[in-house]
Formats: sequence, structure tokens, C-alpha cells
Amino acid sequence: MLALSRTSSTPLVEQIVEQLAARVQDGRLAPGTRMPSIRRLAGLTGASTYTVVDAYDRLVARGLILARAGRGFYVAAQAPPGTQLTAIEPFVDPGFDAVALAQAVLSTSGHLIAAGSGCLPESWVQELDPGLVLGRLCRNRRAQPWAPCPPHGLPELREQLAVKLQQQGISAGAEHILTTLGASQAFDLLCRTLFSPGDSVLVEDPGYFVLFEQLRAHHLQLVPVPRLADGPDLEALEAACRAHRPRAFFLQTLLHNPTGGSMTPVKVHRLLSLAEQYGFAVVEDDVYGDLHEGPAVRLAQVDGFRHVIYTSSFSKTLGPSLRVGFVAADPRLLKSLMQRKLLSVLSAPTLGELFVTEVLGGGRYRRHVDRVRARLARLRRDCRAALESAGLGFEDAGGGMFLWARVPGGIDVDALVRRALERSILLAKGSLFSPAGGSGERLRFNPAHSTDPTLAQFLREALARAA
Amino acid sequence: MLALSRTSSTPLVEQIVEQLAARVQDGRLAPGTRMPSIRRLAGLTGASTYTVVDAYDRLVARGLILARAGRGFYVAAQAPPGTQLTAIEPFVDPGFDAVALAQAVLSTSGHLIAAGSGCLPESWVQELDPGLVLGRLCRNRRAQPWAPCPPHGLPELREQLAVKLQQQGISAGAEHILTTLGASQAFDLLCRTLFSPGDSVLVEDPGYFVLFEQLRAHHLQLVPVPRLADGPDLEALEAACRAHRPRAFFLQTLLHNPTGGSMTPVKVHRLLSLAEQYGFAVVEDDVYGDLHEGPAVRLAQVDGFRHVIYTSSFSKTLGPSLRVGFVAADPRLLKSLMQRKLLSVLSAPTLGELFVTEVLGGGRYRRHVDRVRARLARLRRDCRAALESAGLGFEDAGGGMFLWARVPGGIDVDALVRRALERSILLAKGSLFSPAGGSGERLRFNPAHSTDPTLAQFLREALARAA
Repeated sequence: MLALSRTSSTPLVEQIVEQLAARVQDGRLAPGTRMPSIRRLAGLTGASTYTVVDAYDRLVARGLILARAGRGFYVAAQAPPGTQLTAIEPFVDPGFDAVALAQAVLSTSGHLIAAGSGCLPESWVQELDPGLVLGRLCRNRRAQPWAPCPPHGLPELREQLAVKLQQQGISAGAEHILTTLGASQAFDLLCRTLFSPGDSVLVEDPGYFVLFEQLRAHHLQLVPVPRLADGPDLEALEAACRAHRPRAFFLQTLLHNPTGGSMTPVKVHRLLSLAEQYGFAVVEDDVYGDLHEGPAVRLAQVDGFRHVIYTSSFSKTLGPSLRVGFVAADPRLLKSLMQRKLLSVLSAPTLGELFVTEVLGGGRYRRHVDRVRARLARLRRDCRAALESAGLGFEDAGGGMFLWARVPGGIDVDALVRRALERSILLAKGSLFSPAGGSGERLRFNPAHSTDPTLAQFLREALARAA
Repeated sequence: MLALSRTSSTPLVEQIVEQLAARVQDGRLAPGTRMPSIRRLAGLTGASTYTVVDAYDRLVARGLILARAGRGFYVAAQAPPGTQLTAIEPFVDPGFDAVALAQAVLSTSGHLIAAGSGCLPESWVQELDPGLVLGRLCRNRRAQPWAPCPPHGLPELREQLAVKLQQQGISAGAEHILTTLGASQAFDLLCRTLFSPGDSVLVEDPGYFVLFEQLRAHHLQLVPVPRLADGPDLEALEAACRAHRPRAFFLQTLLHNPTGGSMTPVKVHRLLSLAEQYGFAVVEDDVYGDLHEGPAVRLAQVDGFRHVIYTSSFSKTLGPSLRVGFVAADPRLLKSLMQRKLLSVLSAPTLGELFVTEVLGGGRYRRHVDRVRARLARLRRDCRAALESAGLGFEDAGGGMFLWARVPGGIDVDALVRRALERSILLAKGSLFSPAGGSGERLRFNPAHSTDPTLAQFLREALARAA
């Protein structure tokens, strides 16, 4: 039925999509025709069922086929020309890009080895017995879970977050805190409040890829600053400040994604001096900070919200399903951020904020984080050993949730990632993390999702075959 | 201590804020000084404790005083000049505007008579026994509540929403549906996806005030179209299309906020003809539709997502705490909206979507909505009678969640609303609902929050005194 090539540089899924799309558009597949089942098309083409599902999803998204619940896929009636609903600034099909990876991570079923995921497995959160927490919350708080959440966030949670910051040495009160839907919404609100299109902002290279896409969606100019083992390259930072007069620097102080490194106190101090000298704001992304072992210095601790806007969330410790994060900043800025939040989502869901309030109270959160930290440290060691034995290299010790692996020279990493996906293994390729197009020889692994021996075996075979 | 005037046109709260701010700024109140307790300042000034809390909140927001948990308010250290964190396009202090009203509604404690609220009381949702639903959900679905929610929304919920639309005669499948954090996020994503700054969009006059602020925040040009008892004034609509070439029309087909009116099928048809002729998209906001009694025709039913983008939520029937809404639209548009959603909040919280999934299944939602509808109808009659006896007028029967009252001529509505707030009564003044500055003689009442006899008594006395 389809003419597919495994040696083509076009991914298999795109070949399937394009060939089926052509058949729909030229009428060979007429409106109302039932498409082959996922299993059948996988059998016919030799592609994995994951690839076929992906292809069908893309055809549905393009309006060419329709999914009927429990009844399979059908060719859609062709849309009339000239419909007025065309989106402006359309994204190109993300194919294999950052948005697509984020979407895959958020949508994975248990069938996938999500080695490239940025989240902990949901089973880890279950050890908190979250159902018990919810049950108690509904019993004790009566109507509160069903009352609207104030746009600043639940007052009780904001008080607890202030105490949490104080325990980290950051001088904050509830008046400094605005809750957000994860750190992602904090970045979005900051972009909409602080910057104009065309403004320059500094980012880390490598760094967090979804943030890069968020900044680009706001038409900001990304200025990459190399991330070294002990923090940003300050000479490069100063040169970038002179050349670009950036408005802000987005960075992770502790357990940096993807390298796992943490900033030294000396660098923290010198970076804040540059912020003062060149007048840029520092957006400190501390989503991994709770997993840091031992004493740590955060930018907000030294700066006290003069230049620093602090953001964090519970997505890395309580899971990405809750969407509870927060910004801590100067109260004058906070007021503008709150208004933006109100005008974009009205307010956050109450239940998630109450859940975090319950978990933060009474030491439950601290014990949970201690368990997660210990378990991650053990898995890091095991995972690194397995990946090294498969042929990958590692430079720095680092810590936290990621291993930043080096693929041996001469390997086509794109092809490796594609082959992995056909074996239901989701890899995160290094180039996604580099706003300057570097890190092409890297892969990021999440040890919590990389323990299946199939992964190391696949990598060993794939690297051996390519060498 | 303070020189306050009750006859001034400056609201009491602003007088308090300005006089205290001046004392902080000129050093009469030194950093670290403890502010009078709320009760004490209320006693000293004769203002209500609500007014004092409001004043202190505004001083906190301006960074002039700090709230210390359980220890009262203290004068803040003055921020150093030249800090870089100034927000662009700063909002002016909203004072008494739409954002402030929304904030008040979302933050009200039980002490306030929230007659101007757009939400049902949380006690109504409790009749569903939501704790039981959550408990069952945690038991039966194991890890699912703690797994990330796919950016399109939970597949199971999207299927159910498609079935719900089909039952309303709208041809939709899961591929047409994107979940959002309430209808508010749907509007935000649409603005960010469809329009460029300066584009003209049609809105209803009167209409939903938070939407107006959302559109203004996107720098859109609002073109008001008068809303009559049976829907938009189509002659005015056509004239606006000729004059402004609008990109879209945001409107409510059923149980319109604030008038309570619903569009006739004839108007639905004629409006869609104009959409075709003048090439504008129609954003149908159906958040009140489930409360409509008897047969109803929606725009999406007649149009089938050619010109119509359908939005709705469960905020009016299951409460605003959940933040579960959705868009139904052409799958090609939906893909762009999903990407915008991913880049602004990553994804929605799983728990809320699962909760709605559980409630929608098995007839529980239908029975709940039947109860709410009957109860609202009864309260509408009682509330209207009480407000009429207090001196307010009503023209149209309407239905749903609001009564659109007319204040007798010669009354200063702003002063009335201010006096009400000092008596802990939150009123929604008509001018907020008019993008063209009309409806100055109106108040919107929510019968579910307007049954306290204090309200009618206050209005009777205030209107008698002013007459």
C-alpha cells in the first residue's frame, strides 16, 4: 500500500503521513472510507504501532481523517476552501522538535520507555498515599476545595511557601508570592508582563527547551550563555551584556537541566554584580532545588528580590499532574503578574493548591523529598554504569534528575532517536537543549525512567552497529 | 489619625490608602513600624473592616507595608530606586474596575454578600458529594490522577465532551476538542492564536466584562454590538462589519450574561449568514447553556465549526474552583491552540479533568444540573420580587444565573456600590458590562447570592434616602 524507506532521512512517521495525506487529497481515499486499523497498518508497513498512532494523530490534526470512538479512523470530508479560522503565525509541523517532545512526554502511555522524560514516574508520587491526603482534605475542609481560588493563590499556601523560602534563607513573606500553574505559567506571565517583542533575553546553553519555545513564542531574541559545570560562563555573559543589552537572564541555579550542575556561591555573587552593572533581571528557575543534597546558595537568597525573580514548582517532586508552581518577587511586580494571570486563566484550580498545602504541612513533604533524593541518587549510579557499558560517555558528576550523556563521534543521533522511537523508546536529543544549535552529540537521560534493560541493550546494539 | 470624608467622590478605601501611603513615603511612618490592627483602624476611622483589609492589601501590593502571618502589618523598608523589575504596560490601579470585581468575587470570604458574583455558592456543588467522587476516582484509577494530563486534555474526557455536544445536536468528535482552564483560558488562547494587535473584534453590549479586559490586554479593538432580548442587534452588527471588518464576534447564545436572554433560531441563522458574508469567526461562549430549560439552538449546531469556535466550561455548574473548560473547533485550529496551551501552562491539572470525567459519566451531572436549574428558577422569582419591592425595575423575563436590574433615575450608582461595599455587600455595577460606557443605570444580581434579606433592606433604604 505505501512505499516506505528506512534509509531515507525523512522519518518513517512523516513518510506515512505524507503518503496517506496525498491519497486523501487526490481522492484515492474517498471521504468516509475506513482507514486500516492501527495494528493492521503496522503489520502492512513494518512500522511500530506507536509510529502508526503518531501518523494517524497528525492526519487527524490536519483534518484529513477523523477518529471515531471505538470505531477506528475514517477519511474526513474535505473542508470547504476559504474558511476564516486560519491561525496567524502558524507553527510549522513540530515533527521532531521541542514541543513535540514535551507533548510526547505528557502523553506517554506505560508502553513507552520514557528515558527522555523530564518527570518522575507517577508511581513515585503514589508513595505519599495521595488519595488519603485528598480524602482528609475533603473531610476537614468541607466547602473550601470547591470555593474559587483567589487569583494570588490560596493564602494558606502562600504563607507556607514563604516559610519554605525562609528555611532556604530567602527573606520572603506571603506578599512576595503568586501561585502559578507550574513554573511554565510563571515564565509565560513574566514574558507577557516584562518584555516587548524583540527584547533580548539571556538563556543557558544547554538549557530547558520548553522555556526556549515559550520565549520564542513571545518574539524575544534568545542570547545563549554557555553553561559550565559550576554555572554560567561569566566572561561570555559579560560579552553578551555588552553586545545585546539583555532585559533578563533565565537560569537554573541548582541541579541544572540537563547537565545536573549547581552554581557555586562565588558565581552567584559575581552574576548578581553583573545584573546590577548591566541592569538585567534574573529569573531564577529552582524547580530542581528541593532535590539538592546539602547546603546550597540560591540567587534570591543573596539578592532578596532586587534583581531576582524566583520561580519554582512541585512538578519534579509531586509530579507534573498537579500544576502547582509559584513566583516570588517584588510585590509591585507581583501585582502586575496577578492581573495577567487573572486575565489568562482567571485563577488556578483550588484542589491542587489545597493538596500541596496539606502535603507541605506536617513534615510529609520533607520526608517524601528525602526518599526521592536517595532513590534518584541510587538510580543515577546504576543508570550511568549501564549507559557507560553500552558505550555512552559522561564528564561531570552532577546530581538530580538527569544524566547528560555523550554519544561517541560519528553516530547519527537523529537516526538513533528515530530508531529508538520505533522500538518504543523515547530519547531526548541534546540539540533540543541548545538554543545555539550545539550539543548535537548529547542525549539526556532521566534515571527514573531508564532502568529497563531493554534501553541499554538497544543502545549497545545501535552504537555497535553504527561503529 | 486620618482625615476621611464620606461626602468625597474619592472612595473611602482610596482615601485611606493615599493618606497612609503619604505617611510611609515621607517617613512619618518609619520602616518596621507596626500598623494598627484591622479592627483598630476600622474603629478609628469608622470604615468597615472589609474596607481596611482592602486598603492594607493595596498598600502591601504597592510594597509599602508587609503582612506578617498572624502578627499584623508592618511598614516596609523603602525599595532602592532604579530596580530593573518594572513591568511594561503597567496596569493603573484597578480600583473599582472589572479586574478588581473579578478579584473580589474570587477572593470573597463568607462574610460578604456576594450579590454581584458570577458563580454559584460552593455549597451547591457539595450536594454532588464531590469528596465521594474523588475517593472513588483515587481508588479505581490508581496512578492515573498523578500522571501528566496530555496537552489536548484527557482522551476519555474529550470523548465524553464530544458525546455531550452530539446530544446538543453539534457534530463533534474528540478530535474537535481541546480542554482549557475554564472558558477564560480558551479566550486567551484564541486571542494569542487568531489575532494581531490592533485587530477589531465584535463584542456584545452589555456583555462579559472579564472577556473585555482579556481582549484589551491583547490590544484588540473592541467593537460593541447592542444585545437585544432575542440576541445581537443585527442591523448594528452589519453596520459594524462594514465599518470595521472585524476578525471575530464573541457572543453568548443562551442565557446571556448579564441580561439572561437567549438567541432565537432565526437570529442564529441570520448571524451565521453575516459571518459568511463578512468573513468573521464566531466565538460562541456557552458557559450558561447547560442551565437552559427546554429546546435550544446553538450556533455550532447550525454551523458545524465552519465559522464557529465553540467554548464552554463547568464553572457555572460544578463551580469555578475546578477550572475545567474546553474549546470545540476545526481540528487544524485546535492544533495551534494546543501548542499555545503547551507553551503557556504545559498542560492542565489531571485531577480536575478526571473529576469532571467521573461526574459526566453515569447521569450524575444531568441530575445535578436539573437540580441547579430548578433551584435557580425559584430563587430568580423570589429575588426579583424582593428587589422590585426595594425599588429596582426589570424589563425582560430572561433566565439562568442573572437578574439585570434597573436602578431608578437620579441615583448615583457608583456611590450606591461603594456604600454597599462598606456594608459588606458586593454589587456588580452595570457600566462594567458595557464596552461602550452604557448601562450606567444597571446592576447585575446573582439570585443564588442575593437571598439575604439584608440586601433588599439595604437597597430599599439607600434608594429611599437618595430619592
